[in-house]
Amino acid sequence: MSLYGIENLPYGVFSGDDGTRRIGVRLGSGVVDLSPLGGLFAASTLNPLLAAGPPAWAAARAQATAVVAAGSSATPLDQVRLHLPFEVADYTDFYSSEQHALNAGRILRPQSPGLASSWRRLPIGYHGRSATVVVSETPVERPSGQLADGVFGASQRLDIEAEVGFVVGVPGRRVPTTGFADHVFGVVLLNDWSARDIQAFEYRPLGPFLGKSFATSISPWVVPLEALAPIPAPPQDPSPHDYLLPPGPGFDLRLTVDWNDTRVSSPPFAGMYWTAAQQLAHLTSNGASVRTGDLYASGTVSGPGRDQVGSFLELTWNGAEPVKLADGTTRGFLLDGDRVTIGGTAIGAAGVEIGLGSVSGTIRPATG
Amino acid sequence: MSLYGIENLPYGVFSGDDGTRRIGVRLGSGVVDLSPLGGLFAASTLNPLLAAGPPAWAAARAQATAVVAAGSSATPLDQVRLHLPFEVADYTDFYSSEQHALNAGRILRPQSPGLASSWRRLPIGYHGRSATVVVSETPVERPSGQLADGVFGASQRLDIEAEVGFVVGVPGRRVPTTGFADHVFGVVLLNDWSARDIQAFEYRPLGPFLGKSFATSISPWVVPLEALAPIPAPPQDPSPHDYLLPPGPGFDLRLTVDWNDTRVSSPPFAGMYWTAAQQLAHLTSNGASVRTGDLYASGTVSGPGRDQVGSFLELTWNGAEPVKLADGTTRGFLLDGDRVTIGGTAIGAAGVEIGLGSVSGTIRPATG
Repeated sequence: MSLYGIENLPYGVFSGDDGTRRIGVRLGSGVVDLSPLGGLFAASTLNPLLAAGPPAWAAARAQATAVVAAGSSATPLDQVRLHLPFEVADYTDFYSSEQHALNAGRILRPQSPGLASSWRRLPIGYHGRSATVVVSETPVERPSGQLADGVFGASQRLDIEAEVGFVVGVPGRRVPTTGFADHVFGVVLLNDWSARDIQAFEYRPLGPFLGKSFATSISPWVVPLEALAPIPAPPQDPSPHDYLLPPGPGFDLRLTVDWNDTRVSSPPFAGMYWTAAQQLAHLTSNGASVRTGDLYASGTVSGPGRDQVGSFLELTWNGAEPVKLADGTTRGFLLDGDRVTIGGTAIGAAGVEIGLGSVSGTIRPATG
Repeated sequence: MSLYGIENLPYGVFSGDDGTRRIGVRLGSGVVDLSPLGGLFAASTLNPLLAAGPPAWAAARAQATAVVAAGSSATPLDQVRLHLPFEVADYTDFYSSEQHALNAGRILRPQSPGLASSWRRLPIGYHGRSATVVVSETPVERPSGQLADGVFGASQRLDIEAEVGFVVGVPGRRVPTTGFADHVFGVVLLNDWSARDIQAFEYRPLGPFLGKSFATSISPWVVPLEALAPIPAPPQDPSPHDYLLPPGPGFDLRLTVDWNDTRVSSPPFAGMYWTAAQQLAHLTSNGASVRTGDLYASGTVSGPGRDQVGSFLELTWNGAEPVKLADGTTRGFLLDGDRVTIGGTAIGAAGVEIGLGSVSGTIRPATG
């Protein structure tokens, strides 16, 4: 059974030989063109659909389902080009896996390895660079920068972060956790490429900047929330402040990380401490607005096992414990030419397993 | 002599009774409508003009100058509404005043009060929230948030940061410092409103987030670089890496900060350690792109004197040394109803003093 059957139907933007960008849904290993339906589908990005809100989202999904049920032909994916599915407004990144935060603290701040005092009180996050959010398969050039005091050069500790991104449709301020599904359209897989050496030298006291801003890759398919089955979120201790309650749904998304041809990790999203509804409520709790096309990411998804971590920093313990790939070579961090694919599946709302697409990137040598 | 004579002519977007947004230049206390000229002026934001690049900028300025020289009538500013002059793509904020960084370190991190080891090596910065960049006179609602462990409420330490913002016109990657004027169109005054209690609780390890994202105000007038006279930038020790050299121009911008009816500070921009050209070169040194409408800010402008600091954190030494206002009341941080205006002047390219406009905001009580 296909992970991209009629129960899934994630949306994307594709073009064929004429270069015109069209909206479609993925079906099996092909894409069904929805642009002939007109209306919200007669656009070159998903933004008009995102802005239209839940009743329109339900109607669009019903239309897409009817088109597929009627047996519309799908164009094979190898005959189309996939584009960034929406124009990104603000991009925000959280840090909501307790295991990742603990691992990162142990590795990067061994003199004070625990969680920050605020970590269990609020979903810590920061703003990232919207300009460099790119679609899967966009090559990633190794960044150069200041790697240590007095040292400028190509990053020697180039890493990934396997995350889930949430795509905001309807603008809002002070969105309660119960308003999550009124504002968020769907999910993508996201790779927050990270140059650990650049990041380590620059991040005090204002946080990551050039260590992250060179590229953030997302999957070309936006899986609508309607296709996903919510699950209970993990318990939280201490109980969060009122504005973060109720916690809202969790999601049983099962990620995979492939380093070249080797599956090196399978991060479980279900264990994330802070929910996407809490992240959105927190993000807007100070009166800040969200807009159509805002993208906010979960933070690196790491489970308790070494084979469940979402970064190579953790997988190789900052390079000290290299991993062996299927071809017999070993890795601490990314080499030029390496390719990383983050994939994922979920049990969908219809009770069958569905695919979340994948986000891939290949490292090109530094030129800067 | 007017600060807004023919030597200045900053651009803005205004509307009259019919609500239509038009591009104009400020002349004296009025605005001259440029929309009848058509072309790049026939838009509702400055973005098309920003994107057009230096030759078009020079031509536009020549056109505007000719219109003003011909005696076109100006509509009084009290008869128009001023709007955000351009659509903000990515917003980035730096931290490039040594005096401010030293003061902030002493106040906020007394256990390790010096500059971070990277501070003199690179212009430290972070990404902010584009959605909440607002035009002068937009009311600023006091944000609520987590002020300390277990405490949620309205910020009690609401502050300003007096800064200069640089508006990017032409997209680019790896912009050398010598390319500054090929990409940057002009400057605005900027107030990076900051809730110090929210910021202090949240900022480790990923930097400021909700303590800043509720509002960032900019002046309605973009002063083109062509109107400003460059000056030599201050010396830097140690000498920066090659990608940050030559340092590019400094600017002798003289800021003022009025708290209600009292001038509390006059921050001198000329002393900023890192130049705007270095900030842009650093921002793009990792391969990250800048786009039309990107806004990057200098960081709080603070000089060595207590009457030259760009934040109330420094002015009142975190509230410990309140300032007395002209009405006899005292302040540590902002009270509801308080109004702050950041103004500025410069010696222009024509050798006469020109105005940089002003950015004002009034604090409304918290509702969240």
